[in-house]
Amino acid sequence: MLTRWYADLAWLGGEQARAGVLIETDGDRIRSVSPGAARPPDAVHLAGLALPGLANAHSHAFHRALRGRTQGGAGTFWSWREQMYAISERLDPDTYYSLARATYAEMALAGVTCVGEFHYLHHGPGGAPYADPNAMGLALTAAAADAGIRITLLDTCYLAGGFGAELAGPQLRFGDRSADAWAERAALLAPGPRARVGAAIHSVRAVPPGALGVVAGWAAERDTPLHMHLSEQPAENAACRSAHGCTPTELLSRHGALGPHSTAVHATHLGVADVSLLAAAGTAVCLCPTTERDLADGIGPARALGAAGVPLCLGSDSHAMIDLLEEARAVELDERLASRTRGHWRADELLSAACAAGHAALGWPDAGRIAAGALADFVTVDLASVRTAGADMTTAVQAAVFAACAADIRDVVVGGRRIVANGRHTMIADVAAELGAAILTVGKPANA
Amino acid sequence: MLTRWYADLAWLGGEQARAGVLIETDGDRIRSVSPGAARPPDAVHLAGLALPGLANAHSHAFHRALRGRTQGGAGTFWSWREQMYAISERLDPDTYYSLARATYAEMALAGVTCVGEFHYLHHGPGGAPYADPNAMGLALTAAAADAGIRITLLDTCYLAGGFGAELAGPQLRFGDRSADAWAERAALLAPGPRARVGAAIHSVRAVPPGALGVVAGWAAERDTPLHMHLSEQPAENAACRSAHGCTPTELLSRHGALGPHSTAVHATHLGVADVSLLAAAGTAVCLCPTTERDLADGIGPARALGAAGVPLCLGSDSHAMIDLLEEARAVELDERLASRTRGHWRADELLSAACAAGHAALGWPDAGRIAAGALADFVTVDLASVRTAGADMTTAVQAAVFAACAADIRDVVVGGRRIVANGRHTMIADVAAELGAAILTVGKPANA
Repeated sequence: MLTRWYADLAWLGGEQARAGVLIETDGDRIRSVSPGAARPPDAVHLAGLALPGLANAHSHAFHRALRGRTQGGAGTFWSWREQMYAISERLDPDTYYSLARATYAEMALAGVTCVGEFHYLHHGPGGAPYADPNAMGLALTAAAADAGIRITLLDTCYLAGGFGAELAGPQLRFGDRSADAWAERAALLAPGPRARVGAAIHSVRAVPPGALGVVAGWAAERDTPLHMHLSEQPAENAACRSAHGCTPTELLSRHGALGPHSTAVHATHLGVADVSLLAAAGTAVCLCPTTERDLADGIGPARALGAAGVPLCLGSDSHAMIDLLEEARAVELDERLASRTRGHWRADELLSAACAAGHAALGWPDAGRIAAGALADFVTVDLASVRTAGADMTTAVQAAVFAACAADIRDVVVGGRRIVANGRHTMIADVAAELGAAILTVGKPANA
Repeated sequence: MLTRWYADLAWLGGEQARAGVLIETDGDRIRSVSPGAARPPDAVHLAGLALPGLANAHSHAFHRALRGRTQGGAGTFWSWREQMYAISERLDPDTYYSLARATYAEMALAGVTCVGEFHYLHHGPGGAPYADPNAMGLALTAAAADAGIRITLLDTCYLAGGFGAELAGPQLRFGDRSADAWAERAALLAPGPRARVGAAIHSVRAVPPGALGVVAGWAAERDTPLHMHLSEQPAENAACRSAHGCTPTELLSRHGALGPHSTAVHATHLGVADVSLLAAAGTAVCLCPTTERDLADGIGPARALGAAGVPLCLGSDSHAMIDLLEEARAVELDERLASRTRGHWRADELLSAACAAGHAALGWPDAGRIAAGALADFVTVDLASVRTAGADMTTAVQAAVFAACAADIRDVVVGGRRIVANGRHTMIADVAAELGAAILTVGKPANA
């Protein structure tokens, strides 16, 4: 079906928005893009600034239940992890479906058209497999479908409780018996029209060296994304050096886990050699600035990574907030705090991280651009809110990145289908109510 | 006039919200506060979480025109200042009234019930006085009145273009001929029912040592707040040491500018002795975290200041965003980035900075608390938005600080008058349109 959309302003790449952009879509693809066009009477009007759909390249959907509950107290990344474990113990495929559907719908309202779900909660209590061993993963792909967004399910291998440590307690639900058992189970997952399957190595803490190659090989065979947490905390680096005499990056490299389909998440505490290894391998890095603030991870070497040619993308990770525009500006702003200089990335470069680079990291190279032939995924940012008022064609891209927030997203189109219209989800009547109900069902974690 | 308000949840101090809070107001004051009350049929219902009104303790209203225009490029604090000067050259009392009214209305929508306006743009082009020498200040107090919020006009002494440098170019509009001329002009400003007058020293760069005591004395005589920019950039410290052989804090201290009515703004680059001087004087510090991120100032010693007993308050300063909840959490989150540990302030301590401490710094000690006898200034935070969904009584305070944003403010009451109802300003029909018009009138600064 042919549909015509008319954007007052659209970002088609480059530093500045274009005015009067006619976008023709045919089914789930963009057929043509014409800037400077007259507005046809039959076109769907897109006010504000049209952007490609945003990719949230790193999500743990169930962490949404921790927002506003684990942030006010003291503690560390590691004590926060205990609270996260407590939530994980209470989920089953039904409750996880409800929580994830509402969380993905919140993402849709924030302009996210594709999520990378780093999925490690695959087993039942105590590690027992569900009747369908992928029941939890299927709950997540169903949740994304029902929220209207694309998903890359990054099924995550998680075998150890630390270097040389067995899984214990809540971690038992994350574990397959072995890397081969993980590979067998993950191989049963099938892609769908808006769902792809990728692999993940939880971290070098959780996947022993002998298993790294199995996961990497599985992903390489299938030509599919391979994600991994990397050096989020200095403690991981220290423990890796003690166990293996090298950095986590070096360990991943030795076992073939770095390559052009790989994405390292966080990469906060890297040495110069680590940055070079990532760059040489063509591996991307997914930054999650609001989570890295929340968990006191520190400010990573984003500028050094970018300068070395490492593609950067963005994720909301623990969902302390779900706002890819905040993640995008936070890359620049936190670098300013660390370096005390401004202007490390232009606004359009930050947008590219949120759009094309994020989609590429999730195995959707044909999304993240408003261009003929690309998937028909695009969103609009209101330029007439109290936050964005005063923006015009020359400043619209900058205003979207530095002044707008998730509340300014008005329209979201995924595969030619409008899933958000004027700030309301078109399929889920009350996203906030569903979120509230799902979170209260999962229960209240102990305060920190 | 007696009015009854019934809040589902209200923060009355302490770590947790109270349920079912009946607030009786008599004119502009709170007469009684009763938690655990039944809901009277005639009470105005306040859904969500009621908080005291938020104080924005540091504002330069005209910087609102820079949002989304000066952030995407490279440059430094100092090149940003050139762009800020370009806007300042284009304002007159009429256009400044319009811009400030819309900016203060944006603040009202964000839950700000009192603004501290650090006002240095008092003269006409070239430094010529207006027929009424306080025409610009009066435009600001009228703007606040028409936006429905309280203002403390911090009339700012600004005499030099740097250590030993004359005012030049756009700076001429900021200058009185001398400290005595400043004092005479500022003495003509009269307080109003919702307006107070305070003093400000722009900075030790802009006010020579001999003039510091004049401004400090003026404020002390009147028992009124005295604010000053302090050590926002290392360059200021270096120049001060070179000119005077001491830090800016030491210079201010020597000249009697530090005391319990004083508030130092930013205080980003302090030594241990500076922190002790501020603490010993009872001087407050106003942090402006989103501006300090934007201008690459760095992360200040907020934890050390707090530990020394320095009261902390918050400001949106350059209005890169207007969101006191984001400022509040940014104090904690940026400290986490710097220290790599969590939990430096509880959520209620951060709220106190935004409420009682901010009002105290602006000379309104009877605001910033929901308590009998206090000014009837309070706001509500929606706990049923996609950002805050899942909050309950035990987590509401934490959710307000760490999950909510300005878009979640629903009701705002100032002096017993409801100026925002269900997220809409009750007196200004379209705040965003007024902002857009005012900004486009002031014109487009050159891009960085």
